[in-house]
Amino acid sequence: MSVSAVAADSSVCAPLAVLGRDVTVPLVTGGEVTYAALDYAASAPALQRVWDDVAAYAPYYGSVHRGAGYLSQLSTDLFENSRTTVAEFLDCREDDQVVFTRSTTDSLNLLAAALPADCQVFVFETEHHASLLPWRDARVTYLNAPRTPGEAVRTLERALADRDPHGPALVCVTGASNVTGELWPVRELAAAAHAHGARIVLDAAQLAPHHPVSVRELDVDWVAFSGHKLYAPFGSGVLAGRSDWLRAAEPYLAGGGASRKVARRPKEAGGGVDVEWHDTAARHEAGSPNVIGVYSIASACKALTEAGFDELVARERHLIRTVREGLAEVPAVRVLSLFGDDAPRVGVISFVVDGWNSSHFAAALSAEYGIGVRDGLFCAHPLVRTLLGGESDEPGECGAPEAAPGEKSLNAIRVSFGAGTPDEHVERFVRAVKELVADGARWNYRTEDGRCVPDTDAAV
Amino acid sequence: MSVSAVAADSSVCAPLAVLGRDVTVPLVTGGEVTYAALDYAASAPALQRVWDDVAAYAPYYGSVHRGAGYLSQLSTDLFENSRTTVAEFLDCREDDQVVFTRSTTDSLNLLAAALPADCQVFVFETEHHASLLPWRDARVTYLNAPRTPGEAVRTLERALADRDPHGPALVCVTGASNVTGELWPVRELAAAAHAHGARIVLDAAQLAPHHPVSVRELDVDWVAFSGHKLYAPFGSGVLAGRSDWLRAAEPYLAGGGASRKVARRPKEAGGGVDVEWHDTAARHEAGSPNVIGVYSIASACKALTEAGFDELVARERHLIRTVREGLAEVPAVRVLSLFGDDAPRVGVISFVVDGWNSSHFAAALSAEYGIGVRDGLFCAHPLVRTLLGGESDEPGECGAPEAAPGEKSLNAIRVSFGAGTPDEHVERFVRAVKELVADGARWNYRTEDGRCVPDTDAAV
Repeated sequence: MSVSAVAADSSVCAPLAVLGRDVTVPLVTGGEVTYAALDYAASAPALQRVWDDVAAYAPYYGSVHRGAGYLSQLSTDLFENSRTTVAEFLDCREDDQVVFTRSTTDSLNLLAAALPADCQVFVFETEHHASLLPWRDARVTYLNAPRTPGEAVRTLERALADRDPHGPALVCVTGASNVTGELWPVRELAAAAHAHGARIVLDAAQLAPHHPVSVRELDVDWVAFSGHKLYAPFGSGVLAGRSDWLRAAEPYLAGGGASRKVARRPKEAGGGVDVEWHDTAARHEAGSPNVIGVYSIASACKALTEAGFDELVARERHLIRTVREGLAEVPAVRVLSLFGDDAPRVGVISFVVDGWNSSHFAAALSAEYGIGVRDGLFCAHPLVRTLLGGESDEPGECGAPEAAPGEKSLNAIRVSFGAGTPDEHVERFVRAVKELVADGARWNYRTEDGRCVPDTDAAV
Repeated sequence: MSVSAVAADSSVCAPLAVLGRDVTVPLVTGGEVTYAALDYAASAPALQRVWDDVAAYAPYYGSVHRGAGYLSQLSTDLFENSRTTVAEFLDCREDDQVVFTRSTTDSLNLLAAALPADCQVFVFETEHHASLLPWRDARVTYLNAPRTPGEAVRTLERALADRDPHGPALVCVTGASNVTGELWPVRELAAAAHAHGARIVLDAAQLAPHHPVSVRELDVDWVAFSGHKLYAPFGSGVLAGRSDWLRAAEPYLAGGGASRKVARRPKEAGGGVDVEWHDTAARHEAGSPNVIGVYSIASACKALTEAGFDELVARERHLIRTVREGLAEVPAVRVLSLFGDDAPRVGVISFVVDGWNSSHFAAALSAEYGIGVRDGLFCAHPLVRTLLGGESDEPGECGAPEAAPGEKSLNAIRVSFGAGTPDEHVERFVRAVKELVADGARWNYRTEDGRCVPDTDAAV
């Protein structure tokens, strides 16, 4: 880091401690280096605080809800208190429900399964597949990628104005793009939705780890996010918001925990079973809950709140500036953007490099610099294809398509970071991009089992 | 423990080390005591080995499948190798698929969503709600509780003989009852199912932690189990077995990971999106997988295999004998059983005590002896009601129904244990039952928020 950079950002707080911060990985060029985890948008490392909380609780783990023992009751309280913590973290309305799921994908599938009959769904083509695909039985209107936040609002308003105004409707929108990191005008989209009698769900998978989310202020009907992107990678996610559609829906999973009473119906009444389902969050949480996963999310919510989002946002802005200014100095690099340079954004930046296959570039960042990024279409195929300007006719795998090193890229590279990222990681990344573009990779790579890997033969 | 008991079982191995083995809890009568976790059938403590494996891996945690970094590739290998470990643990056939879910409930809901059209389902009323309820759209035949394993086979055969022999059919059966612990004649039921052109899924939630399960030898089409009952409480479960129905079914969750290619359909082709789904296990695993949960299951599978199931079964038999012989000495205790005293069983024993409300009894075991059991209907309402002989007209909550201490019990008490249970826990349990029945509780209890809790006032 240059001295001026330090001076300019001396007010920026230190990164939060995360697991793996001291892990070293081998370089193909020899030696080891501290791993730079720059794939936070896929999965963030656990906060040390989250791990410590989980480790402290683990010996006290017990069956929840129906056990009579001391640890069962302690675990039940911990589980239900986690609901309250998450509701506070999201600034939920008083009668909102917090349902624990396994991930954002699961949360949106749950909501999709709870839509009223004949619900119309409106979703931009720019969404992650988790927001794009779950609306199976509903009539879905896919909206074109807008090029400004204002165009997003106008596009939605036009589409809603065209709909049958009497039936139920849902808008699903991301808070921050998992490809460009750009923030979407959630409050304005919510206002547009409500003005047309529609509801709105916020996909906060990429927003919640980086920014405070207030359900109340944004006036969204639901919000979904994942633990594993919020520094709590223990298999849980959240759907929080209005309870009426959820209470009216069939249970998401059928089983114990969701069922209050089950009785065989007498033969003369047609046989079968009569089931009385819970109408609380438990209705959609059948099976033994993932207590550790849920508690880890609550722990992360507390840790982020206590660290102070203002500090975290300021620090992340500094990291974003470092990366974007660094990439801007490399003419071969094209950063993908919908809303332009001035759009507010989180630490998620995708780009392509002229003359490089993205898988090759990402493999070299890993093997020669110990930097973990992601290449591919980031489970947002239509968006990435739009941003690549039709360069990618082949939609490719959700992961890296097989392509020989040096071939024209059909996909992109994504670098992403957050509260645990030290300056050195993004500085190393910028230096690595510059060196790779200027000097080329120092090693040969080949494609094996769909992965671009260093050739065992030798250096270039 | 009496000297003779030690002598008689000197060949029995030590319990496996589990988290929480040294946790002490306060007694309402004063002092603290080591917690006796005897609710394994709901959730077992984590094996120390599982915890150690998770703790060693956690700093290396990274996004799986699509990350280019070193830790992503390490995590991907660990995740996919866990599939192989589980397949080996279950002695799967070569072309069986291992799908990771969140729990047995989730596994069976997944299979239910993958049934071919017009599939008929056959299930005994004695099943856990997770096996009883997920078959929403299918025609379900509920079979009466059999009183011998042979009657179970004959009941199934009769029902299958009556069915339309040309359509698809599925039998769902438990390996070991979550109420009585009794083993079901799985191999014979599988043979009956196959003889009638039906398939069979084994609910091994209560079997896999206690007994080796061989998909091949039992000749079942699928098997489902949960991590949290198998000493790996990190939110994952398993559905393993034949891939054809799973491959042919709509993805269980729609989203990234399950989708191979997604493209917007041109307006002239009707708009919407075209999706190409994976046809591997990933098809039903949309969203970022719970890597830690999955790895913890693989770790538990290895730990149990390496400890040796013969040893574990022998040790558990010894514990079962201690509990059953102890309870048999108390005339007021009635142990619930379908198949009688001689039936082979795992360490899950339910009973009622004459003159006691089960919630009251369970609360006293906790508050006065530091023993954690469960009271209720154990998410198997029809079975427990059948076993209680109609005493329970009110089906009650899945958990403890509200009932004043001393009232006649509408539900039962369940004690359950496994590989981590020391002799002292079950011996303390037997002593506690005898003392409570002989002398009554030493404290007053009251019902608060549905829980039976010690009165703050004073001792009896």
